Amino acid sequence: MAICAPATPLRPVYAERVTALASAEFPDLSLTFHDQCFAHDGHFAGSDAVRLAALLECANDPAFDAVWFAKGGYGSNRIAADFIAQVDGQAATKGFLGYSDCGTLLGALYRAGIGQPVHAPMPVDIKRSGGEDAVRRTLAYMLGSDEGLEPDMGGTPAAAFNLYTLAMLVGTKSMPNLAGHEVLIEEIGEYHYAIDRLMFHVTQHLHGIAGIRLGEVSAIPENDRPFGSDVEDIVRDWCDRSGIAYLGRAQIGHSAANRIVPFGLEAGRTRD
Amino acid sequence: MAICAPATPLRPVYAERVTALASAEFPDLSLTFHDQCFAHDGHFAGSDAVRLAALLECANDPAFDAVWFAKGGYGSNRIAADFIAQVDGQAATKGFLGYSDCGTLLGALYRAGIGQPVHAPMPVDIKRSGGEDAVRRTLAYMLGSDEGLEPDMGGTPAAAFNLYTLAMLVGTKSMPNLAGHEVLIEEIGEYHYAIDRLMFHVTQHLHGIAGIRLGEVSAIPENDRPFGSDVEDIVRDWCDRSGIAYLGRAQIGHSAANRIVPFGLEAGRTRD
Repeated sequence: MAICAPATPLRPVYAERVTALASAEFPDLSLTFHDQCFAHDGHFAGSDAVRLAALLECANDPAFDAVWFAKGGYGSNRIAADFIAQVDGQAATKGFLGYSDCGTLLGALYRAGIGQPVHAPMPVDIKRSGGEDAVRRTLAYMLGSDEGLEPDMGGTPAAAFNLYTLAMLVGTKSMPNLAGHEVLIEEIGEYHYAIDRLMFHVTQHLHGIAGIRLGEVSAIPENDRPFGSDVEDIVRDWCDRSGIAYLGRAQIGHSAANRIVPFGLEAGRTRD
Repeated sequence: MAICAPATPLRPVYAERVTALASAEFPDLSLTFHDQCFAHDGHFAGSDAVRLAALLECANDPAFDAVWFAKGGYGSNRIAADFIAQVDGQAATKGFLGYSDCGTLLGALYRAGIGQPVHAPMPVDIKRSGGEDAVRRTLAYMLGSDEGLEPDMGGTPAAAFNLYTLAMLVGTKSMPNLAGHEVLIEEIGEYHYAIDRLMFHVTQHLHGIAGIRLGEVSAIPENDRPFGSDVEDIVRDWCDRSGIAYLGRAQIGHSAANRIVPFGLEAGRTRD
């Protein structure tokens, strides 16, 4: 697996810990952290040009079976369109794994029909309490294990996104057609009113989807007054208003419990 | 002018101060604060039903020449579509004045071709340092004064929005066609990276506009690391990437200096 950072930089200590875990427990997997993971340029892990070049190297190199995004944080949207325009045929059979801000790349790849986009824990998750289990989930998935998959996925194609990331993706040239899909969403660090506002927006854009499932919504800041309804009620309300089926909870989120969601039908996922 | 609160409640003391100022300096204007301005229901100034009913009363009552939104804060999007569906012919000649979250209503009215939407200071602005001048600007405008208009408006139709509000509005059934318009934007309280992300989103939705002008962007929180470019560079960059003309700065924002922008051509504005 090639690892690069399309958004923000990874601390080298996390790369070392992921490498050590993989060597000890998954000796059949080879992980290659691109130096770009540790680059800094203001907010980002290198300039747009540097991040794009590293991502293209990882995607276009036939030596790699998959591209694993090291970390989210914001920025992959800035290179997504150029990446899709420049990626070559080597990427067609690769898995692309990550979540949060990197959902923009998963969406752009899915729209373009390139490779297998997979919502999955990232190297940076090693820092969380229980984070080794999250990282193990992605590594085991790469070796063919089903154990880390989100458990309630059935015969319906699925896609999973951070809600804010999805709200910025809808209507753009990187947005895939999700008609007929279960759309799993999760969020972290947003006020109740902001979640309500994001749901207003995305539900008007998600025409024809099979429904929405709600993952973890964590670290909601306290406002100067209570919103008046909880997050599940907010999501159900906007689903009702827009004629979208609310399909219950999902096991995804910004936590060590974050499960794996291959985009599309589970059967279509890439295995080593 | 009828005053209601489509989003969050106004403190009664601000209504008293605005009423006193208007009585002393603008005796030809009559202000009627609807009781709903002071209602509370969780985050909102009353439930959606209560806010919608008050807004319809104000818009449909022939006794009023204009509807002034008391305050933003979040929530007018929740009633905008129902409002447009239920408002009657009395609204056709009225001005609708406000900004921030209430930009959703201005946009929805503009899309529907109902009345004259006007980006303008609101009663809540009385609380700001220099806020009396902001309130005077709207009151004088209602009596026909041009002095409070954004000074660089020419022969091009215009519209003005809070950036986040616009980002949630694009692609929804309340979004007006802004082709050929100068779009003025302003923001408060968002990180640089969030402004970048919002600009990514809105520039992909604003096809065919005449250009973007940037108002005040205030109270930007400090992130754990500098973003690497300032707000004007961010806006210029996304304009460049999307083929939208960047037209320079504008005198709008969440401050007492906020100027008036009638939607459409200035000549089309409502006067008493």
